[in-house]
Amino acid sequence: MLDVLHLRPAVRAEVPLILSLIKELATYERDPDAVVATEGALERDGFGERPLFQVTIAEWNGEAVGFGLWFFAYSTWRGQPTLYLEDLFVRPEARGRGIGKEMMRFLARTALDTGCGRFVWQVLDWNTPSIEFYASLGGTVVKEWLTVRLDGEALRALAGR
Amino acid sequence: MLDVLHLRPAVRAEVPLILSLIKELATYERDPDAVVATEGALERDGFGERPLFQVTIAEWNGEAVGFGLWFFAYSTWRGQPTLYLEDLFVRPEARGRGIGKEMMRFLARTALDTGCGRFVWQVLDWNTPSIEFYASLGGTVVKEWLTVRLDGEALRALAGR
Repeated sequence: MLDVLHLRPAVRAEVPLILSLIKELATYERDPDAVVATEGALERDGFGERPLFQVTIAEWNGEAVGFGLWFFAYSTWRGQPTLYLEDLFVRPEARGRGIGKEMMRFLARTALDTGCGRFVWQVLDWNTPSIEFYASLGGTVVKEWLTVRLDGEALRALAGR
Repeated sequence: MLDVLHLRPAVRAEVPLILSLIKELATYERDPDAVVATEGALERDGFGERPLFQVTIAEWNGEAVGFGLWFFAYSTWRGQPTLYLEDLFVRPEARGRGIGKEMMRFLARTALDTGCGRFVWQVLDWNTPSIEFYASLGGTVVKEWLTVRLDGEALRALAGR
């Protein structure tokens, strides 16, 4: 039998699978307790009338082995949407088959097909294998832009609540 | 007369103003030729049936002096949307009146009102005044996450086009 990789949109019934993959990714990123998302939240935000994100499932011989979760950001300088990849994950037992690269190719085509001028994501600075993988795909680390975050008590304080 | 600051959503007829403010911001960020956006693109993407971004206009005594352009990103770990501020700008002649801080407060309230768990933006690493301003608001620079970008020829190459 030939091995078959199939990339397709997730369906609503796969929310438990998606949450499991998100938790597996967080464990890989050394922060397993950081995931407080629930199935209800992912169903509401990803599968309602105006989804806040899209999920692409990677199936290898019919079995889900990875996912990409992405949404549209916007570049005002370009006047075009940006495909922003929030999560990309291939289960450890399925690595070494080129699945991650095929997912990145698929998302690059999706970006062009949806009028995006850019495909953007983030990587942890200690994750050398991923940084090298992304460089091999032509990705450029944008060093001059720093990310600033406000959440929890600091966000409420700024809002005056 | 008391000075009055009013923060309100932009309307479609203000697309020329928005594009002008985007260009003024790019000039401040030392990249004045980087803006290739057109009025048509901003109208299509920001004022159609499913807007890809929102614009908040700052008016000082009835005159537009600044803007914030933002959209919803998504945090899979939190299972909540993130308010992502793409552009924030106050015209030089209107600075020193606390307008930027009021805009950030307004956006923090907007984040909480729309169910966001985070308020995120980026800053150029040489922009010390802005970095200090954001720190004074409680913002944290997230140093361990690097941004990776693919566009132009590299994006087409990965897509196989």
